[in-house]
Amino acid sequence: MDQHIKPVELAKAYRLLNHGPTVLVSASHGGVQNVMSAAWSCALDFAPPKVTVVLDKATATRPLVEQSGYFVLQVPNMAQLQLTYDVGHTSAVDTPDKLAKADVQLFKVEGYDVPLVVGSSAWLICKVLPEPRNEQVYDLFIGEVVAAYADDRVFQNGHWAFENADPQWRSLHYIAGGNFYAIGEAVVADVTGAK
Amino acid sequence: MDQHIKPVELAKAYRLLNHGPTVLVSASHGGVQNVMSAAWSCALDFAPPKVTVVLDKATATRPLVEQSGYFVLQVPNMAQLQLTYDVGHTSAVDTPDKLAKADVQLFKVEGYDVPLVVGSSAWLICKVLPEPRNEQVYDLFIGEVVAAYADDRVFQNGHWAFENADPQWRSLHYIAGGNFYAIGEAVVADVTGAK
Repeated sequence: MDQHIKPVELAKAYRLLNHGPTVLVSASHGGVQNVMSAAWSCALDFAPPKVTVVLDKATATRPLVEQSGYFVLQVPNMAQLQLTYDVGHTSAVDTPDKLAKADVQLFKVEGYDVPLVVGSSAWLICKVLPEPRNEQVYDLFIGEVVAAYADDRVFQNGHWAFENADPQWRSLHYIAGGNFYAIGEAVVADVTGAK
Repeated sequence: MDQHIKPVELAKAYRLLNHGPTVLVSASHGGVQNVMSAAWSCALDFAPPKVTVVLDKATATRPLVEQSGYFVLQVPNMAQLQLTYDVGHTSAVDTPDKLAKADVQLFKVEGYDVPLVVGSSAWLICKVLPEPRNEQVYDLFIGEVVAAYADDRVFQNGHWAFENADPQWRSLHYIAGGNFYAIGEAVVADVTGAK
């Protein structure tokens, strides 16, 4: 594992998603691995940390999540802009070599049989909390975060450091039609409550 | 209603939330109005457009949502940075004049008896789709967007225009402890599929 990839304490895992980035969703089952992008993913709880993600029934990743009971959310960055678009707009259903075409490389961390995408800024390994009605009616999956990691070049001591890192580390926020926004400048509210 | 506030067609309403901004949640019931901020809100479907939002049981806004069956998500901006922090960190439970203290002004649009926050960038009026288990177990509410509006100084022809608008219009993406990021630069992936 890259020396820059450091564990994130679970109590602060929500911060990896709190600013609403588009994510990459990865999963594997029976020797098959896949990755898709998802703009519709969100933190759901602090402790234990939980997340939501919408996985359409047409995706090839969804059955891997359903069968294995696990998925990984990764926070991609500017260096992964094309990869993020590509894995969201081709499907392994009709493009079996989708991952190779999108230049996706995968790695594993000890203790979890799930694929992680090389080069991302953060990774949240999630165990599905089965909610059949949500999954069927809304395509909405809930996961409990069981382990989290981040690259210490952009997430340090429990805080994103976008403002100090190379711009290639900025998170991506998808709109439509290939158009994203990168995350921008840090701004701070007055927390003294003097108002 | 301000001349700059224009309806957004429902088919494009998801774009107002797709980049993961922190939102303001407003609701009213029985003559009581309230507003809170929420980082945990997300698009859920395109057509009809649906959204999710997490409303903790301790909030004063949640009972207004439960009793009225409606809530409004608004996308705040840099000019509302302090307001967004303040309505997320004081509660009408113990600060009855919370809205006045946070300089929140409200308005209504024709056809809906819900309060909208003046000065926001976009507004999504949502009808609760009751899901008692989600609400009780996860504090997760699902709403169908029944009307949407945006300020045409920052959302034009179905597209955000952060890159061309005054920086005061940039959306806010909360992390923790008063620390937000503003949305940043527009970046575009190659959509030709040549890769």
